[in-house]
Amino acid sequence: MNGAESLIKTLVNNGVEVCFSNPGTSEMHFVAALDEVDGMRGVLALFEGVASGAADGYARMAGKPAVTLLHLGPGLGNAWANLHNARKGNVPVINIIGDHATYHLQYDAPLTSDLKGIASSISDTLIQSQSSAEIADDAAAAVAAASPNNVASLVLPADVSWSDNPSPLPEVRAPNTLTPVSPEKIKEAANLLSKSDAGMIFVGGYISTELGHQLSRISQATGCRICVETFPTRISRGAGSAKVEKLPYLAEMAIDHLKEVDTLVLLGAPAPVSFFAYPNVPSVLQPDGCTIYELANTDEDSLAAAHALVAELDAETVEPALNGEQLPELPTGDLDAMTLAQALAALIPDNAIIVDEGATTGLACYPFSEQAKPHDWMTLTGGSIGYGLPCAVGAAVACPDRKVICLEGDGSAMYTIQALWTMVREQLDVTVVICNNSKYNILELEFARTGARGGKPGKKAASMMDIGNPSMDFVAMARGFGMQASRATTAEEFSTQLAEAIQTEGPRLIDAVVPCLQLG
Amino acid sequence: MNGAESLIKTLVNNGVEVCFSNPGTSEMHFVAALDEVDGMRGVLALFEGVASGAADGYARMAGKPAVTLLHLGPGLGNAWANLHNARKGNVPVINIIGDHATYHLQYDAPLTSDLKGIASSISDTLIQSQSSAEIADDAAAAVAAASPNNVASLVLPADVSWSDNPSPLPEVRAPNTLTPVSPEKIKEAANLLSKSDAGMIFVGGYISTELGHQLSRISQATGCRICVETFPTRISRGAGSAKVEKLPYLAEMAIDHLKEVDTLVLLGAPAPVSFFAYPNVPSVLQPDGCTIYELANTDEDSLAAAHALVAELDAETVEPALNGEQLPELPTGDLDAMTLAQALAALIPDNAIIVDEGATTGLACYPFSEQAKPHDWMTLTGGSIGYGLPCAVGAAVACPDRKVICLEGDGSAMYTIQALWTMVREQLDVTVVICNNSKYNILELEFARTGARGGKPGKKAASMMDIGNPSMDFVAMARGFGMQASRATTAEEFSTQLAEAIQTEGPRLIDAVVPCLQLG
Repeated sequence: MNGAESLIKTLVNNGVEVCFSNPGTSEMHFVAALDEVDGMRGVLALFEGVASGAADGYARMAGKPAVTLLHLGPGLGNAWANLHNARKGNVPVINIIGDHATYHLQYDAPLTSDLKGIASSISDTLIQSQSSAEIADDAAAAVAAASPNNVASLVLPADVSWSDNPSPLPEVRAPNTLTPVSPEKIKEAANLLSKSDAGMIFVGGYISTELGHQLSRISQATGCRICVETFPTRISRGAGSAKVEKLPYLAEMAIDHLKEVDTLVLLGAPAPVSFFAYPNVPSVLQPDGCTIYELANTDEDSLAAAHALVAELDAETVEPALNGEQLPELPTGDLDAMTLAQALAALIPDNAIIVDEGATTGLACYPFSEQAKPHDWMTLTGGSIGYGLPCAVGAAVACPDRKVICLEGDGSAMYTIQALWTMVREQLDVTVVICNNSKYNILELEFARTGARGGKPGKKAASMMDIGNPSMDFVAMARGFGMQASRATTAEEFSTQLAEAIQTEGPRLIDAVVPCLQLG
Repeated sequence: MNGAESLIKTLVNNGVEVCFSNPGTSEMHFVAALDEVDGMRGVLALFEGVASGAADGYARMAGKPAVTLLHLGPGLGNAWANLHNARKGNVPVINIIGDHATYHLQYDAPLTSDLKGIASSISDTLIQSQSSAEIADDAAAAVAAASPNNVASLVLPADVSWSDNPSPLPEVRAPNTLTPVSPEKIKEAANLLSKSDAGMIFVGGYISTELGHQLSRISQATGCRICVETFPTRISRGAGSAKVEKLPYLAEMAIDHLKEVDTLVLLGAPAPVSFFAYPNVPSVLQPDGCTIYELANTDEDSLAAAHALVAELDAETVEPALNGEQLPELPTGDLDAMTLAQALAALIPDNAIIVDEGATTGLACYPFSEQAKPHDWMTLTGGSIGYGLPCAVGAAVACPDRKVICLEGDGSAMYTIQALWTMVREQLDVTVVICNNSKYNILELEFARTGARGGKPGKKAASMMDIGNPSMDFVAMARGFGMQASRATTAEEFSTQLAEAIQTEGPRLIDAVVPCLQLG
């Protein structure tokens, strides 16, 4: 067994089943080993940012990491942006970064770079494997380091791959879990929320149906509000889920949302903060004098803490306040953000997965679908554009029996459009909705908010936000990847096409032509 | 004048005229300042890897840097791979990396990352600007640090952009130049080459017509060979250029190419080394006992050194051995790497710029075009795939009066396909030739050479090199960006379409369907 084979075998033994790959020469023995070792699915991506975003989406849904296979420093560079999203979302990912043979590095060949530097900048743990005798142990350590919520990178020199591994494979380890919250903290949170007139639990990460139900019980027992962070990693919602608020994106609106709160209990989320800084707008969003209490940080077990808090409050028998199923009529007339959101809410199938990178057009979709059929919703956790299409790839690989709907801005689609090819190749059950308004509409909004040039862009600045010159035809692009696609310009067309896409299994794109969100 | 305006004004004063941009919220004051300050052209890219590759291509042709405008750590991540190519090619690039306001960083907002870490890993110089009073000086320092051949990164916090700059602008500085080579080194090189029976000058970087002529004189005066590195940054060639060799890519062939050499004089190139390591193939390519003498490193002035060496050898009046113009017939019959190369050599227009990322299909194009009309040829200096289309954007912006022809593999095209949009937007005079063989053909070759699985890929491994499932239609993709495009499947079709593209100004794509290179 060579190093690469022992590496893959160890990954499989430790529950890692999928490798999102964009390999090069230094990874050829790893690629060869996919045929020698059972149990590892290789999913090819045409660009490393697709691989890393897919690993993020996979782990959000599977609850365990996939690996990426990347080609030296530049491969990791291409993967970096979506790894950033995974880190900010506390999602486990393992990177296998192929490198030159150990003895070849001294010659500074063209693909030699500061691999340690770039890998350190994006990894919670970095392991630089040095010998084939150690690679399997290193792999086991990487899996352990990634779980439950970290990015671990394993640098795999080519000679470590191709040399024999004489060592026995390491023992299989149980994956790491989140840390329990102490009983003292539960008591303190119960105390704070009970005595507060205007308490709020601010919750982040994965908000499962079960977690939502517990939070609703706490809310009813104490009178506190429940508010989800602006960009949760994953939230189970729709009919049967607990009613929860969501913090608005815009700092001014978020400040308004929090203005009455006197006690903020953090559960798997950092304290709320403005996404960007703006002149004369505070970065901190809660009011002065508000008590902040961290019940569970992102390394701690929010769900167990919520159960314990319910028990502490004797609220186990309280009925949670749940959303019913209430589907809007299918819209007619113009296609815009509102009618698009209405059609989506009406048509979301049971147990669907929504990947939201719809930017300004997507804004209306979340509130509209609160009482849609039960579904999971995933968001752009780290603000690094280009996560949506790759995340949909990963979610569909993790959950082949669930429909994935990807809401994607036209601008953001163009960061990782290559993901369409992998959707077709793997025949993933993904419906992509391009929210095509021919603008960096969010930047128009932000330009005004930053007060630059009095909020009025000049000719050159306006041109930097205008992606309609030339206009992009996503139907043509999708067909370039062999993907079925259609364009919708009215609410009726969109509803018909979305219904058809949902009823038919397999990849499909809808180029939804919508006007820009009108601001101010 | 705010910080952003003083920054752009300083860049312009110091000769920087073009900004390849993919901005976000934190860069809005920079974008606004494009309208307030004269002299900076903003070229929008849909992805940061296009911006950085374009800055590389621009500087290779303009001989001075452009700036990129990038959005925090993830924007730099996306730009990283093509910055790697610029660094390996000793090409100057200045990155302006927008960051959160200085006071906002402490809150760890979603887009906060280890920006210093990733920026350090790809920059020769990193300047983290801290105040609007200093930003203009920092900008002048960044221009100085980038010239003549480095990557300099300037981190620009949003509040540094938007705050007033009360300081006077810095004085304009003359750009840095390459270091002269000492007379002693010239004498020593002359001595070594004169007494050697089998000397070779190994030359890299920018090999201008003038440099080629000087090298040819040295060759005739001393009997030494002249060999260009495998992936030069830029070489002026075709009719009227000196006859020079080029080191083959494959290590075995490179070793064979160098096997007689007893004295290797390095001129603007590091000593030759295998691109990758392979089991049982040496990394070092020159024969044992070969004397290596570094006449000029990549920071030294190769052209001046060559002139001095010619003078030292009293060879000023020696006629250089030049290539004549000898154009092949237009090919007929099957379209393959050979007939594609033949058509290209016949049709390259005078003073064209060839950007070569044609991978295996492109291999034949270089030797075939040795006696074509005079042209510049640029290559993938750092091995980081996805440089071709962006580099063509930058070259065309730098040289609006010259035709750019981009030879692009289908696999490599997919790393930065968004560059087509910028070509259309700016109406750049670029002809893109996609060498579409539906394979990672180079990986099939490399798989065999690494000896993985006895050189015979299994089913999964073969699938990782098969990008024909689904097959990609580059004509459809190009039309998705509003670009005129056609498909060629015979030599006649290709010749006709290439001739038409060359005669017509503006962006155009040819999807050239070719068989894989047959190996072994």
